[in-house]
Amino acid sequence: MQRPDAHFMRRAIELAEKGRGAAAPNPTVGAVLVKHGQIVAEGYHTACGQPHAEIECLRNAAENGITPADCTIYVTLEPCNHYGKTPPCSKAILDAGIKRVVIGLKDPNPKAKGGADFLREHGVHVETGVLEAECRDLVADFLTWIQTPYPYSILKLASTLDGKIATRTGHSQWISGEESRKRVHELRKKVDAVIVGGGTFYADNPQLTCRLEGVEQQPLAVIVTKRLPENPEQFTLLCDRPEQVIFWTNEKSALSDAARKLQSSGSTVLAVPEQNGELDLAAGLSWLRQEKNCLYTLCEGGGKLALSLLENMLVNEFQLHMAPKIVGDHSAPDIFSGRSIATMDEALQLRIIKTELSGDDVIVTLRRQEM
Amino acid sequence: MQRPDAHFMRRAIELAEKGRGAAAPNPTVGAVLVKHGQIVAEGYHTACGQPHAEIECLRNAAENGITPADCTIYVTLEPCNHYGKTPPCSKAILDAGIKRVVIGLKDPNPKAKGGADFLREHGVHVETGVLEAECRDLVADFLTWIQTPYPYSILKLASTLDGKIATRTGHSQWISGEESRKRVHELRKKVDAVIVGGGTFYADNPQLTCRLEGVEQQPLAVIVTKRLPENPEQFTLLCDRPEQVIFWTNEKSALSDAARKLQSSGSTVLAVPEQNGELDLAAGLSWLRQEKNCLYTLCEGGGKLALSLLENMLVNEFQLHMAPKIVGDHSAPDIFSGRSIATMDEALQLRIIKTELSGDDVIVTLRRQEM
Repeated sequence: MQRPDAHFMRRAIELAEKGRGAAAPNPTVGAVLVKHGQIVAEGYHTACGQPHAEIECLRNAAENGITPADCTIYVTLEPCNHYGKTPPCSKAILDAGIKRVVIGLKDPNPKAKGGADFLREHGVHVETGVLEAECRDLVADFLTWIQTPYPYSILKLASTLDGKIATRTGHSQWISGEESRKRVHELRKKVDAVIVGGGTFYADNPQLTCRLEGVEQQPLAVIVTKRLPENPEQFTLLCDRPEQVIFWTNEKSALSDAARKLQSSGSTVLAVPEQNGELDLAAGLSWLRQEKNCLYTLCEGGGKLALSLLENMLVNEFQLHMAPKIVGDHSAPDIFSGRSIATMDEALQLRIIKTELSGDDVIVTLRRQEM
Repeated sequence: MQRPDAHFMRRAIELAEKGRGAAAPNPTVGAVLVKHGQIVAEGYHTACGQPHAEIECLRNAAENGITPADCTIYVTLEPCNHYGKTPPCSKAILDAGIKRVVIGLKDPNPKAKGGADFLREHGVHVETGVLEAECRDLVADFLTWIQTPYPYSILKLASTLDGKIATRTGHSQWISGEESRKRVHELRKKVDAVIVGGGTFYADNPQLTCRLEGVEQQPLAVIVTKRLPENPEQFTLLCDRPEQVIFWTNEKSALSDAARKLQSSGSTVLAVPEQNGELDLAAGLSWLRQEKNCLYTLCEGGGKLALSLLENMLVNEFQLHMAPKIVGDHSAPDIFSGRSIATMDEALQLRIIKTELSGDDVIVTLRRQEM
């Protein structure tokens, strides 16, 4: 039985995922070589500076004693057509004698694109657009890096089934289960900065560290607040690792005594513009990317900051950890608040890209609909 | 490669699902016959009065020219051991010469159990408990019927990601997408009664009919309210099909002029006891089962009735249709309200049994944790 192209592309997507993180700022890419309906070689882009997925796949074919000329190659992203850190993959595929190439997503990078055309011009049969949506989601981070000045921004919040984040008395330990809370540490491990609002900072006095073993470098801690702390010694973060703490605040606070005190102990105070009384989060995110080389950020709330990021299209991926619990109390705090809309059309519209069980909870992963 | 038992049991579960509805009040059961790691025959209990799954499977084996003696049979529920509408399946399996039987769930029905012991006593190798939790979920309806006086009660509600059911102005069309709304009609098709609270009845003037093609009998419409309508002619349900409408109300309202007027046009007014000022929903559900032979009911809200059912352990299955939208307004109405708790431990605890995408929405199916 001849399996459909989607089957092989799905495997290539799985492989690609293995490179996420290490591949950055390159895209995560996977490839498989198929002969007579069987996968005979596999490869993915393991790390920036290492060979691309296609080359790894051809290398694996050589190890397996496979002649690629008889095979179809499936690759999640169009083979590059330029000399970057490595020679063009389009040429390598051609040199290998491959007659059929199946591509998930056309390369959106103007510098690298053209691989499909190059191959066609040289008589190779090329198909594109197989599992295109999935292949696009696969490189959502990379698309952010080449199309915007921002890091790939992940938002993680936890709520009950009925959208509550605490009881009316403020009791919130715990909303989500142990498994989900562990997932948060895995997220913190993969990002360059963790961002929280002032409310969360003052109420929870958080560490914002990854408590998994083997973590060499903790993410930067970003606190978004117009009101800087007067007594830094009261906050764990400012005692333990002040030089990794960044405040996004307004011009006025950035010139205050509190700012000078924070700066003297090694923290960074960044003045970002205000728009309608709101701190310009886009400016802060751009700064993180440009000055701190942050490729991934994680916002962990609170709800006001989260909603502001969502409203300003500054969330690439929203992970909602939903616990199967019902508070059932209108006086309990909502996961999001501060908007005032009359009709459902005005609701913020997102799209679900994944749901997965995590212990007793469900994690729903979403993007803004436009993304 | 020898596949694990779970693989074959999963297929038996799939088959069993095909009989849901028609099999009632029998349990839905599926069976597969496996030879050398391959499924060679399949069967499920298609309808009450028809042969059990094991018999269907053996019949399918005969059609396929398979000798069952060489095979293992996988069955989701312990083969029955009694003469009911059909002879015992335990004996049929023994007579077929099968040497190995793999069972999902031991039969919880005292009348039919003992099949595994019977087979073991006759030298058959019997294993039980393969995918037991799934096989128990598969017959959750049947367990309700044999262990309680109630119908299998489904609760369906729709909300946004942040637990809202409308905007602050009450605008709610639509929360969920077209696909999910179609699913509601499929649910209505399968149940014997649709139940709504008085608030929903007065605000929405609903039809509560299944608008799918080919529906011969509409579900009964149950309205739970202490206040009976004074002007029945204003309500679609009471104009279109009054004799299919049942009011659960208190003693006092049941003796009112409004009650007499409703009864004269064919509707039923049932007085149920009050406990702490709340109508005893358990009494109403028992009545539906006993007097109206209802095996499945569907509650479609509102939130107050839904919460009351959940708190009283009168929901067997809760389908939450969640739209990927954010209202973000604390003044917008919550999916559940009326409770007042101090700590998260007091939240109603459920467990997720399934999540599935439905158009743009996600449907999360839950049970009370204790079930």
